Amino acid sequence: MPAFLSTTEDDFESRFAALLEMKREDSPDVDAVVAEIIADVWARGDAAVLELTAKFDRLDLAPDGLRVTEVEIDRCMAEVPGAERAALEQAAERIRAYHERQVPEDAWWEDETGAGLGWRWTPVAAAGLYVPGGLASYPSSVLMNAIPAKVAGVGRLAMVVPTPDGVVNPLVMLAARLSGVDEIYRIGGAQAVAALAYGTETIAPVDKITGPGNAFVAAAKRRVFGKVGIDMIAGPSEILVIADGDNDPDWIALDLLSQAEHDESAQSILITTDEGFGRAVAAAVDKRLETLDRRAIAGASWRDFGAVIVVRDLDEAVALSDRIAPEHLELCVAGAEALAERVTHAGAVFIGGWTPEAIGDYVGGPNHVLPTARSARFSSGLSVMDFVKRTTLSRMTPAALGRIGPAAEILAQSESLEAHGLSVRARLNKLNEGGA
Amino acid sequence: MPAFLSTTEDDFESRFAALLEMKREDSPDVDAVVAEIIADVWARGDAAVLELTAKFDRLDLAPDGLRVTEVEIDRCMAEVPGAERAALEQAAERIRAYHERQVPEDAWWEDETGAGLGWRWTPVAAAGLYVPGGLASYPSSVLMNAIPAKVAGVGRLAMVVPTPDGVVNPLVMLAARLSGVDEIYRIGGAQAVAALAYGTETIAPVDKITGPGNAFVAAAKRRVFGKVGIDMIAGPSEILVIADGDNDPDWIALDLLSQAEHDESAQSILITTDEGFGRAVAAAVDKRLETLDRRAIAGASWRDFGAVIVVRDLDEAVALSDRIAPEHLELCVAGAEALAERVTHAGAVFIGGWTPEAIGDYVGGPNHVLPTARSARFSSGLSVMDFVKRTTLSRMTPAALGRIGPAAEILAQSESLEAHGLSVRARLNKLNEGGA
Repeated sequence: MPAFLSTTEDDFESRFAALLEMKREDSPDVDAVVAEIIADVWARGDAAVLELTAKFDRLDLAPDGLRVTEVEIDRCMAEVPGAERAALEQAAERIRAYHERQVPEDAWWEDETGAGLGWRWTPVAAAGLYVPGGLASYPSSVLMNAIPAKVAGVGRLAMVVPTPDGVVNPLVMLAARLSGVDEIYRIGGAQAVAALAYGTETIAPVDKITGPGNAFVAAAKRRVFGKVGIDMIAGPSEILVIADGDNDPDWIALDLLSQAEHDESAQSILITTDEGFGRAVAAAVDKRLETLDRRAIAGASWRDFGAVIVVRDLDEAVALSDRIAPEHLELCVAGAEALAERVTHAGAVFIGGWTPEAIGDYVGGPNHVLPTARSARFSSGLSVMDFVKRTTLSRMTPAALGRIGPAAEILAQSESLEAHGLSVRARLNKLNEGGA
Repeated sequence: MPAFLSTTEDDFESRFAALLEMKREDSPDVDAVVAEIIADVWARGDAAVLELTAKFDRLDLAPDGLRVTEVEIDRCMAEVPGAERAALEQAAERIRAYHERQVPEDAWWEDETGAGLGWRWTPVAAAGLYVPGGLASYPSSVLMNAIPAKVAGVGRLAMVVPTPDGVVNPLVMLAARLSGVDEIYRIGGAQAVAALAYGTETIAPVDKITGPGNAFVAAAKRRVFGKVGIDMIAGPSEILVIADGDNDPDWIALDLLSQAEHDESAQSILITTDEGFGRAVAAAVDKRLETLDRRAIAGASWRDFGAVIVVRDLDEAVALSDRIAPEHLELCVAGAEALAERVTHAGAVFIGGWTPEAIGDYVGGPNHVLPTARSARFSSGLSVMDFVKRTTLSRMTPAALGRIGPAAEILAQSESLEAHGLSVRARLNKLNEGGA
């Protein structure tokens, strides 16, 4: 049974606080192993990557076998059934259309002193995309990481994906091709992250690494951060559904289960204004859990971390939602659009009962890489912005320097940074001599 | 003597690579100490903060003495001479005007299926600003961190600044007031970072922490990252000047020294098309080093990490600059505007000989918190964007779900995520029954 809370109960605040503080993930401490692997790849390059791939993926490769050839990709893609290919193409097209609207604009203006000011955005030159192997090898994740990079203008996008025992996922290859991935390497784990960050004889280094992975991959990304940029380290998935009584309990149950089936550490919460509806949803979840393929995982997640919270009204619902700062938020209530405008902290909002969260995982258009573990309070989902950076621009004229230089000189002196002040003063002197 | 390189020399590539790889900073390993301090503040709150402040800052406070009162701030501000106050006001106004242009726009549109898509930006609710004490207590840094936060709409901005032996910097107080800082606490070090991240009886927790600090502060920020957001961990400052022979060598020397005087680990590099000019600048640096207040620091930086690089033409200069990816880049050449458009990796560009970098430190308008250590390849300076986050929005209609739902169902099945597919299928069934 998941937790059942009501804001009308005396102990609500303490039970809700406990729900918020619940630790759902115990990451194994793999940092020492990962440090060794990174040092090994840094020192020995391809040789280390090949040895580690033989060891962890049971795959013996030659250096020229690290990269998946175009011929192999073509052969893999040919295996994908037409319906799946069409679905992936539709998803790629919608994700691209959404992200194209995120490309930021340059700016340049002159202010009242005549100074020119502005900024320019430029793409990261080379990015690396980590794609997990085995069961968690999701083609949708390739689209969600690779398309924003390519829309941003990243010139070189290198993907790594482990292929344990040599097994390649054809849909992942197709997704890479549809997204414009430039290079694919059949490696994984900390060794793949190290190869992307530091380069080897075969793999040129990149400037930024994104994509999900296991504890080894996450630890490796943390370690190479600074040398290269990384995206967020994602935690277990979460969904919060706010629903009134005017919904089909089975729809809502399936939405809750679509997060719960990801991971035993996932968390699904329903907030409802209707206690009877809350109980009906819990019953519908139990019913679906009788037959669901991944019922062991989804059942454990729902039992350990699931919750139904009954509130007096939608004001309470929104206030609790902002405290949870959920990764995914479904608003299945009358007036969902207006309610969406009152939400402050959430990774993605799904408006109305006809917008199941799963749409956002695949074909809606917005990114499915979103902030977890309450980090929507201070961070955003993956976007084009993660693959661009801004250079600020300033251009003084002699007259502009004459008007703002003296303030810079005074502040430099107050901070005891003499050369800062002198660099302005030397020019002001020239200006005062009429030399400009 | 700084390094003197020329692209016409046979060993240029290896010497330039060595310059790029040069390790300028040896951070002491303070992680264990910092972990203890954070755990202590987490467990004991104010009591721990008070004890640590007594120990490190030689300052005995009562809990109600942690916060600087409005009366104290007023009294401090009254001590600031008129010229400095006016300079700080001019700086604040220009920084605010620049950053107001960075506020990102919300978006909402309907696509050809009738699906509504978009995003909303919202400010971080509460931010913490770390300001170092003592010699590195820079009022300009308060403006550069606090103004973007307030422009973003951060509701609560709490500043921490250690006051060793009780000494308060009046200009820092004035800068905080001008920037709209809401609360000021006289604490510093890892204990201040922990207090901001976890909260104490007196200090409410924040969602994001920015601002520079020593090795303890940097280590504490790394440790609390995830619980709260943090800005980048800045390394020693850097400047690259690209100059032709048509410049006053003394101006360029002062620009190089204005970074060198920050820190013995700072790096100042001149790239010039004119070898004679390069030698004249080096001579001008030596001459200025005879009298500069901070000549010990600036001299060490210039000797150990400075460089003059002679290139054949500006094409070479831009290519080398992009490999360096400098924090600050001055373009003191004819056609500087056009050259600026060819620069790909730099934190801030200063266009033309009348734009000394020091202008950007204080009053230009752009932020002076910029990516160091080649991280301009993948990251940007501080901006309004650091204090907002984006929530993506989707709203399907029944018809829209009818058109894109089947693709989501197919992809969910291919990823073996049954509940994902069922959550779409249940709605499609209703639609097919004509129930929508």
